[in-house]
Amino acid sequence: MDGYSPFVFSDNDEFIVIDQRFLPQIRKVKLENLNDTCIAIKDMIVRGAPLIGIVAAFGYYLAIKSSSNFDELEQLSNLAYENLLTTRPTAINLRWAIESQRSLIKDNAILPVEKIIKKVRANAFGIFEDQKKADYKMAQNGILLFDKQMRILTHCNTGSFATGGIGTALGIIKYAAQQNLVKEIYVDETRPYFQGSRITAFELSKENINYKIVNDSACGILMQKKLIDCIIVGADRIAKNGDVANKVGTYCLAQLAKLHNVKFFVAAPESTIDRSLNNLSEFDIEIRDSNEILNVNGVHLAPDGAKALYFAFDVTPSYLIDAIITEKFIYRPDFEL
Amino acid sequence: MDGYSPFVFSDNDEFIVIDQRFLPQIRKVKLENLNDTCIAIKDMIVRGAPLIGIVAAFGYYLAIKSSSNFDELEQLSNLAYENLLTTRPTAINLRWAIESQRSLIKDNAILPVEKIIKKVRANAFGIFEDQKKADYKMAQNGILLFDKQMRILTHCNTGSFATGGIGTALGIIKYAAQQNLVKEIYVDETRPYFQGSRITAFELSKENINYKIVNDSACGILMQKKLIDCIIVGADRIAKNGDVANKVGTYCLAQLAKLHNVKFFVAAPESTIDRSLNNLSEFDIEIRDSNEILNVNGVHLAPDGAKALYFAFDVTPSYLIDAIITEKFIYRPDFEL
Repeated sequence: MDGYSPFVFSDNDEFIVIDQRFLPQIRKVKLENLNDTCIAIKDMIVRGAPLIGIVAAFGYYLAIKSSSNFDELEQLSNLAYENLLTTRPTAINLRWAIESQRSLIKDNAILPVEKIIKKVRANAFGIFEDQKKADYKMAQNGILLFDKQMRILTHCNTGSFATGGIGTALGIIKYAAQQNLVKEIYVDETRPYFQGSRITAFELSKENINYKIVNDSACGILMQKKLIDCIIVGADRIAKNGDVANKVGTYCLAQLAKLHNVKFFVAAPESTIDRSLNNLSEFDIEIRDSNEILNVNGVHLAPDGAKALYFAFDVTPSYLIDAIITEKFIYRPDFEL
Repeated sequence: MDGYSPFVFSDNDEFIVIDQRFLPQIRKVKLENLNDTCIAIKDMIVRGAPLIGIVAAFGYYLAIKSSSNFDELEQLSNLAYENLLTTRPTAINLRWAIESQRSLIKDNAILPVEKIIKKVRANAFGIFEDQKKADYKMAQNGILLFDKQMRILTHCNTGSFATGGIGTALGIIKYAAQQNLVKEIYVDETRPYFQGSRITAFELSKENINYKIVNDSACGILMQKKLIDCIIVGADRIAKNGDVANKVGTYCLAQLAKLHNVKFFVAAPESTIDRSLNNLSEFDIEIRDSNEILNVNGVHLAPDGAKALYFAFDVTPSYLIDAIITEKFIYRPDFEL
């Protein structure tokens, strides 16, 4: 049920992650220090909002573990915080996880340095364990919304490779499939990184759950032909009013869902809710390297010199969302998170 | 201005087409007979509704040119008609072009066979020349809708590689750019065949017109951020009431355009209008081989055994369309074509 683990952190601090850019091929990468961790997050060797937080928490530990006194520990802690924070701007879980590590260090300043370091290590595991529990609770909450065998469309990857647990949106779908509450799963490929066709499809295959991959722009005809009952997606950040920042394309799905009376659900841990933001109407969208659009499998698709624009996320306003599922609640509109 | 020619048909009947699956790389394929022509259309070596018609017309000629008597001519003509008709189901231009060839043969039964064969050859060139003229007229009509420098999104490829002329929707855009009526062009990549990033981008590059490639699912955020003034697309078939069948994803664009007050224009020659259909509400959508979704550049993206569903087209209901531009008219709602 736990699917594949996207990383291993061993007893002797060996930190190995699966390079998700090559899935369904399995290639492993060893992260030895802060710099490796930052590159892994920035270059999307690992991705998925909750997983980014977990990997950052372990990277934080690697960054500070050699400290021999508190001054050094604090210095390395600040360095880790600053470097990790800027790797990816959207996933609030990243900030949440590294703030948890930094606070832990500050709050335990009175302890011997080696004890603080142990606590930072344990906290990384704690964040990971909490996510796994949260995923499972989300799945249990999520299936309460299934009043029949559902035909579901999902976007991006929100499974084990996004959280380390069973997943958020995909966790619900996998759990629902086990309970015989799923009639059909449409996995959209999710350009440009192909999280859907490469990663979500991989996870569902491993669980022997049937699915069909569709191109992203097929969402319209699928709904027009009444082939979809609900859409379930994850989130990278959720504002107090229920606005959701998520993988680019989510907004299209939500608008089309509203037009076709298809239910639109968002699943994310409580740590994804950013209560410092009332809404996301002014939210800055991460613009990534246009080469991620122009190259597939190392082959340049477009003519030489072609330019691309790659918004990696978009914002779905809360009025398009029927429910936000966390490990604690099923929030309903009007949202007050 | 004529861009690149997607094919050459020489004085000695050598029929060479550019294999559009490899663009922007140029690979040429020689079509020697009916079978080659059918494969070229079916496998999307050539594509684009008007071009499919033109290539079919030349293939028709190749199919009948060796006839030594009228019986044989009629037999080969029927064979050509039946085989070409089933290569691609959506583009009405295909049927229109081969019906034109078949009628020509029937109507000239009184003539010596070699004269009929010459007429069939000339008719293929005639259809090609008419398309080029129609493209130019469409461009002239189309820019009448530009009341300022426009920021345009286009889908698929509707340029020289789709028609042999300057193109339909892309012809208008290229012509408008020459008249300094274009502020920005967004080319969506158009999965799974990447007509946008591979072919439209190639044409615009050759004309030194600036553009930006975007992933298909970015259409929502682009309109939400008010970066688009109008969308111009082509069509594979248009019903009497103005319903449009076009490359999958068109329907999403049209719905999102309506929601964001973005103008939605369709450009196609009159031969794309199928007046035998009152509307397209029951229109059969071509479902193509799922491998076209699962493989990119010969690399299998998804896990072994993955299934995909590939609707190649969708239907945009006429109420979402602000204008249909042909070589004759700018049709406005309510459409009565």
